[in-house]
This record gives sequence, C-alpha cells and structure tokens, in this order.
Amino acid sequence: MPKKEVLYLKIAKAITEQIQSETLQFGDRLPSLRSAQKLHNVSLNTIKQAYMELESRSLVESRPKFGYFVSQTSQRKLALPSVVNLKGSEIKKTPEDLIDKVFGTISNTDVTQFALGIPGKSFLPLAKLKKSMLNVVKSKNDSGTNYEPVQGNEYLRREIAQWSLVLEGKITEDDLVITSGAMNAIYNCLMAVTKPGDSVAVESPVYFGILQAIQLLGLKAVEIPTHPIYGLDLDALKEQLPKISACCFVTNFNNPLGFQMPDDKKKELVQLITDYNVPLIEDDIYGNLYFGTERPKPCKFYDEADLVMWVGSVSKALAPGYRVGWVAPGKFKDKIIRQKLLQTVCSPSFYSDVIADFLEHGRYDHHLRMFRKKLYSNYLQIQKAVTTYFPDNTKISEPKGGFMLWLELDKRICTENLYDEAFSKKISFAPGRMFSQYNQYGNCMRLNYGLEWTDRVENDLERLGKMIKNNI
Amino acid sequence: MPKKEVLYLKIAKAITEQIQSETLQFGDRLPSLRSAQKLHNVSLNTIKQAYMELESRSLVESRPKFGYFVSQTSQRKLALPSVVNLKGSEIKKTPEDLIDKVFGTISNTDVTQFALGIPGKSFLPLAKLKKSMLNVVKSKNDSGTNYEPVQGNEYLRREIAQWSLVLEGKITEDDLVITSGAMNAIYNCLMAVTKPGDSVAVESPVYFGILQAIQLLGLKAVEIPTHPIYGLDLDALKEQLPKISACCFVTNFNNPLGFQMPDDKKKELVQLITDYNVPLIEDDIYGNLYFGTERPKPCKFYDEADLVMWVGSVSKALAPGYRVGWVAPGKFKDKIIRQKLLQTVCSPSFYSDVIADFLEHGRYDHHLRMFRKKLYSNYLQIQKAVTTYFPDNTKISEPKGGFMLWLELDKRICTENLYDEAFSKKISFAPGRMFSQYNQYGNCMRLNYGLEWTDRVENDLERLGKMIKNNI
Repeated sequence: MPKKEVLYLKIAKAITEQIQSETLQFGDRLPSLRSAQKLHNVSLNTIKQAYMELESRSLVESRPKFGYFVSQTSQRKLALPSVVNLKGSEIKKTPEDLIDKVFGTISNTDVTQFALGIPGKSFLPLAKLKKSMLNVVKSKNDSGTNYEPVQGNEYLRREIAQWSLVLEGKITEDDLVITSGAMNAIYNCLMAVTKPGDSVAVESPVYFGILQAIQLLGLKAVEIPTHPIYGLDLDALKEQLPKISACCFVTNFNNPLGFQMPDDKKKELVQLITDYNVPLIEDDIYGNLYFGTERPKPCKFYDEADLVMWVGSVSKALAPGYRVGWVAPGKFKDKIIRQKLLQTVCSPSFYSDVIADFLEHGRYDHHLRMFRKKLYSNYLQIQKAVTTYFPDNTKISEPKGGFMLWLELDKRICTENLYDEAFSKKISFAPGRMFSQYNQYGNCMRLNYGLEWTDRVENDLERLGKMIKNNI
Repeated sequence: MPKKEVLYLKIAKAITEQIQSETLQFGDRLPSLRSAQKLHNVSLNTIKQAYMELESRSLVESRPKFGYFVSQTSQRKLALPSVVNLKGSEIKKTPEDLIDKVFGTISNTDVTQFALGIPGKSFLPLAKLKKSMLNVVKSKNDSGTNYEPVQGNEYLRREIAQWSLVLEGKITEDDLVITSGAMNAIYNCLMAVTKPGDSVAVESPVYFGILQAIQLLGLKAVEIPTHPIYGLDLDALKEQLPKISACCFVTNFNNPLGFQMPDDKKKELVQLITDYNVPLIEDDIYGNLYFGTERPKPCKFYDEADLVMWVGSVSKALAPGYRVGWVAPGKFKDKIIRQKLLQTVCSPSFYSDVIADFLEHGRYDHHLRMFRKKLYSNYLQIQKAVTTYFPDNTKISEPKGGFMLWLELDKRICTENLYDEAFSKKISFAPGRMFSQYNQYGNCMRLNYGLEWTDRVENDLERLGKMIKNNI
C-alpha cells in the first residue's frame, strides 16, 4: 500500500473517531481543505481523498462552495421509517375528506403551515419576478391576445431546454410541451397512456395528488413498497409490471419520503419499464433542490426507448401561482399536444414569457443557489427540532433535497386526530393517511420545512412534540 | 279600429311596398324616427309603432343607436341551408386529419383566414388591454406567485357576475368557476356529468371542438337536426333524451349556423331537460355579439333546476390568447372545482386580474359596442359578396350575431377538395365535413367574417366564388 493512501485513510479514521465520539456533531462543518492541509501537514490531494472517503461512507456531506459537513446518517439517533408491504385485496379508499379538510385551510394565514408543498413567500425573488413581468408587458405588441402554439411558448421551451443541463443535451425545445403546472402534465400523461380501468404503479407512501388524478381518470393505483433512502422496491415493481399500463414516480427528493433514487437503480428502473414496454411518468419537480454537490439525473437521462415522460415546473422553487410546468413526453408527444388542444386550446402567454425572461437572464439558477442553501439550513433545523422535541421512538426520513420530512410516530398515535388538536393550536401538517389509498400510515405525518424559520416555527415544533408525547 | 292604429299600419304598408319593389334594399337604413315623423306628418309614437310592426314581420332590423335597417330576410335571394335528418347506424368518423390540416396553418399570416373562429387583431383594444396589464403588474405585491382559489380569481368572478346583466342577478360570484377558456369549461362540464360510453346530444352541424372533446372523453355524440334560423329540432331531441346523459348546445349565434334560438324554444328546451333530468352545457361565448337590439337570454336564465351549465369566455371578442373563460355550473359546481384542482390546481392569476380590471373600468362594454358595429358591417359585406360572386344555388345562413357564416353549395362541390385549391391561392376556410361525425356537409363551408375587411378579402371572396363556379 503506497504511503499516500495510508495517510488519507489515517486522516479519515481520525475524523471518523471524532464523529463517533460526538466531538464533531451532525451539521458541524469540517475544517476547510486548506486549514486541514496545514493541520495534518499533508498535500491538498491527500485531504481531498480523506474527505471523499468520509463522504463515500456517508459520514460527511459536501455542499458546493460551502464545505464538508457531518452528515445526519453519521449520528442518526432516530430510526428510518418502515417500508410497508404490497397490499393485495384490502379495501381501497382515498381519503378525500381528510385532504379537503387539510387543504381547505391553506388561505388561513395565522396557522403555521407544515402541511403545504410550497415554499415560503420570503424565499421567492418577488422583485426580480416583477422586473421580468414589466419587461414582458412592454414587449408584448399584441397585449397577449394572440394564441400561443398548442405545444407551448417557443421562447420558454427554448430556455427550458437550454437550462436543463442535467439531461446533457438529450432534449431540445421541440421535445417539450408546456403545461399548466406539473399536476396538469401528470394528468395529461396518465390520460395519454391509459384507458379507464387500467392500473398505474405508484410509490407508497404516494403524493395524494397523483392518487386523486388516477382516480379521476377511472384508473387503479398499485402502491409499490418504497424504501425511505433508496426508493422504489424494483423487485416488487417487476412482479406488477405485466399488469401495469403506466408508472408514475417521484424519483428525486420524493414527496413525501425525500429520497433520491440512486443512479444505478434509476438505470435498472428504466431497463425494466423498457423490457415491459410500460411508460414512466417521472415527476421531477424537486430535482433542482438538491443538498448534495450536483443536480441528480432523472430517469429520462437513461431513457433510450422514449418511454419516460419527464415532468417539471417552477411551482416548487419560484412561482407556484404561475402554473407553468412542462413535460418531455417522449413518444407520446403528439397525443399530449392533441389533448392539450382539446382541453384548453393553448396556454396563456404571460407567465410563460416571464419565466423565459427570468431564465434567459440567468436569474433562476442564481435564485436556486440561494434557495437550496436556505432549504438545507431549514432541514438541519427541523431535523434537530424533531430529534430534540419528539419522542425517541419517532422514525424520521432522511431527505437528500426538497422540503418534505416524513415521520413515523408511535403506533398509538393517530395523526388524523392529532391534526385536529394541532390545528386548534394553529399548527397544520399533512397526516400520513393522505398518502395511501389503504388504511395505513395513520401514525405518520409529512412536514414541510420550506417555510421561513422563525422562533414561532421552532416553538410550534416543540408544542407538536409535546402533543405527541401526551397522546402516547 | 282607432285612427292611430290605421295610420301606423298604413305607413308600415307603404314601407313594405318600397322593400318589395327593391326601392329599399337589404342593408339600407330607414329614415330616422324624427325625419319619418316629419315626412308622414304623424306623431313619433305612430312612427315607432310602424317600425316595430315592420320589425315583427322581420322586414327590418333595429340596431341600437344606429337605426332601422332593411333586413336580409326581407329580400333573401339565396335559400337557407337544409336541415339534415338524424343519422342512425351510419359509420361515424370524426375528420381529425382534415381538422389538423385546416388548423395546422393558422400561424400562416399570408393567408386570408376565413377558417378561424377568432376576431381580427385590428378589432381588439390592444392599447387599453396593455393599460390594464400595467395596472395589474403594479398592484401585484406577490408578483403573482400566490395560488389563486381553485374556484378562480375572486375579483374576476365578482366583475363577471356584475357584468352578466342578461341573467338579471340570477348568478353571483359564488356561482362561477374560472376556466382556461370556454373549451376547458366544456371539457370539464362533460367530464362532470358523464362516464365513458355515455351519449351527448349536440347540434348538427356541430362545432368540431365539441365533437373532439366528446371523443377524447370516450363519449358518443348524438347529432340532433338543427334549423338554420330556429336552431335545434326539439321533437327530435325529445326522442333521444331518455338515452342521453348530457346536452351541449351553442344557443346564441350558433357556431357554425349563426342562429339565435328563440326565447320560447329556449324555455321549452329547459323544460325538456328538466323533465328528463339531463344537464345542459350551454356554450354562450357569442351571446354578446348580437346584431339586434339586445343581448339574447341564455337558457341559464330559464333554468330553475340548476341543470344548465352556462359557459362564457373573452376569447371571441377581446383576448383569445388570455385563455380566460368561466362556467356557472349550477348543481355541478363542487364537482367542477374538484376536477380543476386535480387537473391544474388553480388558474394563473395574471390575465384574470387584467380582465377584471378591464371589466371594472367599463372598458369591455365600450369595446363590445364598437365591435358589434364592425361585425354587423362585415356581415353585410360578406352577405353581399357571397350573393354577388357565388353561384345562385348557394344556400346561405342568416346569422343574428357572432361572426360565422355557413354556406351550402351545389351538391357537386366537395369543399374538402376546394380547400386545397383555395389554400394554394392563399385562401383558407373551414370545410363542412369538419362539422359532423358522419360523412355529410361535404358541400358546405364555414366562413369567418370577423376579420378586417379589406379589398383583398373582397377579392378573395370573388376568387372563391369563381373556383366554385368552375367546379360545377
């Protein structure tokens, strides 16, 4: 073994011991490469190798332009949520009433909103958006009265294609269709590749909007067991694929579990759906909100059969109300365009132009860099707060990006009942029962940490923890 | 018989003779009430009575602030289009390829566009719209990033409810749902009241967009015979109603026939659907483009069972590209709102606010007054041009508003073939075959006269007339 290698492993071991003894704790920053170099009196490369070794063991996480941090996995105090089995004949019932109750109150501004899937207003670049709005109004000779092409605003499609570096040039403006947000894209993708009565594979727990769209179209959802770190159980999926007409998965920073499906699993998934010729609707709306060093690849990147319908939007990071989303629908493009024509003729031009202007001026990437830092900081906060205030048997997800945290509480807790108690104290969250068509996840909850972090938020988490403890 | 009555009838008779002898011709303006009073040396009331008598016999038409005009019916030279029978077992085939061909060219600006269902750009109040756009940008503290209520922008719903005087207060802002144009409203109404395999009654000829939406949802269209002046054959409809899940009709200034269903027939229609408990989707997007004295009532006005889903939009008179439409869905409101939530979450706010601002400042009614005058003037022009340049056996509709003219040509003419010939000479129209799921209306065409009337338009109609003559 060459001397250099021994050195970096030695340094890595020293740091590992510091972490294990909690001298270095979750969230702590490691010394910068330069100071560490001086400290250990070694070359910069050796330090780099040491840190990369620690990262490969998930003991630390690197954040671009930020440094290396002790990771959550290094000192996990709370367990991961469980993986549930594939349900067979159990009675299905989407919890419409519960969903209505939780979302009937979103305009209620005096409630701490852990329930929502949208970023806090203070995180959005409102002034810069207004600048783009004014640019667009000034430039519109037709005052917006002309129809857009059915496929969508050409300026916007061009900007999205250019901005989608993660696909390394695999899509062009001609591959994209503009939609009214991601939900509209998912709805239309489902419609394009199924007929009533067909089955659609989804993750479990699953974002309730997907479940509801499946139901609206007269389809059946098949909930596939899903691991909180690695995502979908591909063996379970494989068994179902012969009976499945489409898959609909959130592969990056999954809602609600927060996982990032590893690259090799994505490749395997794409191979599977290709073998069975089953289209995959890939909801990738959180993909840019990564805590790691780079934007994870979507399955679309590995898709050679044109079977992956890649869905994105600006709703999760920039402008929920604009209803600007898109899909690269692969071989189903013509069908999607026809459906759009018959459902709405075309998209309204204004916000398409605003987003295109925002993208063209590089404002989106700039904003995303800031936003990711804030989200990661919030994640560390909520992580610590749950660990501190919630019971020790709380199981907690380990999101790699996005702004959703999934908790599995003591079996005796019913989060549907807890919701009412919390709401009476002006705290809202999403009860786990919303995330399945079966009567499960009743002791789970989803917390949105994409809100502005204040003392009140911290206090409300403490109060929520107390309520849970009182209910055991 | 009192003297006064004799007098007004005498005057009416004199004018009738002038019309019959063609001293007064179609489109000519009668003397104003004041000059006629002097001319005949009678009271103003007598003249009014005489003119109203002529109007009741359809010899003249009154236009608000414009005067009385010799009507088209008074001297009809060309016959009305035929009413076709209800089709039974004939093979159905919606002409998708033809529709794609005709509408694949709408961005082709060097073609005279008689095919489109949108108003010419020069008729739209672009500067005033831009003013409203700037107002809205300035007032939006959230830069439009907030979600709207699913039901739609409250400001817009309030303004539409107030502006819908024709309903005499029968709807409020709470009865309206904002949609992405009228097609989106129709699509969602169909979806709310049917399930795949159900039958929907439509007029025949029928607007192809409605046929396509029916097909997309897996429904069957039942084409009801329709008269070019009186609209739907209610006896034929009555026979079908037991087998029908929904009706979808364009009752005012029908597309493509242009008729205004008379009030008593509307009442009868509403009674029928109420008796059979069948929802009626009433596409009333042309209702404000009347040539007569007042905005005709929609069926919604007579609807006491909450079965009529009244659909409107700003696409036909103000801003096609805004995709701002609405529906007052009666008892199906909650279902429509839920569908909207699952399909798009909510509408984008910007153009909703712009239209609300435009309405609040009274700009829409002002614009509509101007626009109606221009449309009526165009109608007189195209009417004369067709009468002059087209063969004498051309049958022609008699629109009472809107901007669609329906022609039935010699049996030997195939307008699908004629389309190619005309298009090669940079003239586009909508071939009749597009307006049925059966192989009929092959010798018909729809002409849009809502375009700016230029010498080229006049010349193109002359050339079109020649092509038709050459094909007989």
